[in-house]
Amino acid sequence: MESSRIDVLGIGNAIVDVLVRINDDFLTDRDLAKGSMQLIDADRALALYGAIGGATEVSGGSAANTVVGVSALGGAATYIGKVGDDELGRFFAKDLRAAGVAFHTRPTTDGAPTARSFVLVSPDAQRTMCTFLGASVGIEPDDVIEADVAAARVVYLEGYLWDAPRACATFARAAALARQHCRRVAFTLSDPFCVARHREDFLRLVREDVDILFANEAEITALYQVDDFDHALQRVRGHCDIAALTRSERGSVVLSRAEVHMIDAHPAGAVVDTTGAGDLYAGGFLAGLTAGRDLGTCGRLGSLAAGEVIGHLGARPAADLAALAAPLLRP
Amino acid sequence: MESSRIDVLGIGNAIVDVLVRINDDFLTDRDLAKGSMQLIDADRALALYGAIGGATEVSGGSAANTVVGVSALGGAATYIGKVGDDELGRFFAKDLRAAGVAFHTRPTTDGAPTARSFVLVSPDAQRTMCTFLGASVGIEPDDVIEADVAAARVVYLEGYLWDAPRACATFARAAALARQHCRRVAFTLSDPFCVARHREDFLRLVREDVDILFANEAEITALYQVDDFDHALQRVRGHCDIAALTRSERGSVVLSRAEVHMIDAHPAGAVVDTTGAGDLYAGGFLAGLTAGRDLGTCGRLGSLAAGEVIGHLGARPAADLAALAAPLLRP
Repeated sequence: MESSRIDVLGIGNAIVDVLVRINDDFLTDRDLAKGSMQLIDADRALALYGAIGGATEVSGGSAANTVVGVSALGGAATYIGKVGDDELGRFFAKDLRAAGVAFHTRPTTDGAPTARSFVLVSPDAQRTMCTFLGASVGIEPDDVIEADVAAARVVYLEGYLWDAPRACATFARAAALARQHCRRVAFTLSDPFCVARHREDFLRLVREDVDILFANEAEITALYQVDDFDHALQRVRGHCDIAALTRSERGSVVLSRAEVHMIDAHPAGAVVDTTGAGDLYAGGFLAGLTAGRDLGTCGRLGSLAAGEVIGHLGARPAADLAALAAPLLRP
Repeated sequence: MESSRIDVLGIGNAIVDVLVRINDDFLTDRDLAKGSMQLIDADRALALYGAIGGATEVSGGSAANTVVGVSALGGAATYIGKVGDDELGRFFAKDLRAAGVAFHTRPTTDGAPTARSFVLVSPDAQRTMCTFLGASVGIEPDDVIEADVAAARVVYLEGYLWDAPRACATFARAAALARQHCRRVAFTLSDPFCVARHREDFLRLVREDVDILFANEAEITALYQVDDFDHALQRVRGHCDIAALTRSERGSVVLSRAEVHMIDAHPAGAVVDTTGAGDLYAGGFLAGLTAGRDLGTCGRLGSLAAGEVIGHLGARPAADLAALAAPLLRP
């Protein structure tokens, strides 16, 4: 195996989050299913901009949040994703680099604006997302740099990516290069609606290409079309080397062929905004895995990182994750 | 293997429950740790009788509750336990037989009264037990009938039994006969305080004699002296063929060498009295196992039986468990 100067190479939709606190009526008035992510077009995005009051713009994107978590925990992280050649795109790149993540993907040149996701945070801390994909869907196979894959212990891809027209080819190139260089492929199912949009593809990926799978309960039961978590668990075992399945306040389960771990949710204070919980769980987990930690510790790192991010608005860590994680990593 | 006319042979302390609804002050005034079981002597039992108002007497005993659950789900069950030669003892025997459980153990002849447990039910449905063991501790090796063990698919013993002076010898005889007749030994840790009283013995049993282990989170972490459920899980794997670990409203985990199942708690209405939840979980599980069901179904049967019993006062099923379970058992 070649040397790995990258612990985690994340590939996903590069998105700036527009955070808005709303009440439940805002969702019902617009027929938005609480907790889901739905795609919107440019017109709908403009209409939403008009309807909201004060908003906060922060860099987001699922896999980008994950690699920021990896970096915060001391891992070397690189990101591949497509922004527009605009102010928001430069903002996104600056934030990533400030978080210690390498980011070199060229912006689109077709004038498409940087993607934005309206993250509508309800009083109960649930988040509902309306995403205008803009420039992010311009990602294509050539954006996956062979040297990056060759240098990465884990190549991490988000299911959301599948909403881009050239995602399939991009994913295929990343997976093929990973195989060729003996690198591991990690994948998150992202969202139950995303699973519904691409179920056949995701099933094939999980069976054939994915070494490490991340999913929450709604996503994994949607993938296997079963109504019970345990039935999904039986299906996923044997499909991937490692599956890390999250269940919100019920914690998570980490399965490998030989092991099973049940990880408690990290005791958090008040839950303010659940955006990024799954992203940071994956970030903590992969930071542990690429540092050679045992699977139980990986799960606890994931739980800790997720517990931190739900305690404040926004999907990137606000506290010093490495300091929080230190007690877990004592010999 | 010989034919099995008994599915589950339960061995335990034969106890009549004295159910009393109390408020939390009743516990704090008497220094009773909520949720625990503590042993009391005859004088303390008399004092408690004096302090309580209206009480309901119902047949109880952990393993007895379990075999009643087995019988309610259509399994053939037999019980071994020691009552006194008194009114309460005859009441206990009548209830067991009415529930379809075979019961032939001779009462004590030394005048010791039938054991009773004051089950103090708090407004939050937690129960605290004060048990006067009386005649129940008179159990001895000769009470274990070889023909019963030879005829039983599973011999089920409760940890509480260990508070009887001849328990060790009784358990040893039951386990030896089970081995000799190729029968499986199941064991419940019963209570974290009981684990604390007999930890070294229980560790040895779990390693050497027990095929199927039942424990809740407090008990299994007490057994291995770890502060985290996942660490206990790693320790118990490999010690027993099957471990069924319950976590109250978080459901249960069923582990075998090859399988893992995560079972949700059964959706119940209001929780009225948690007495017997663990007993009935074991009853449902063993009814499934001895009927040849897969481990996931066994766990779901346990969860269902536990969910029923916490919905009313008392530790024996009030509803028709077999009817409730029918949807789980459809092909």
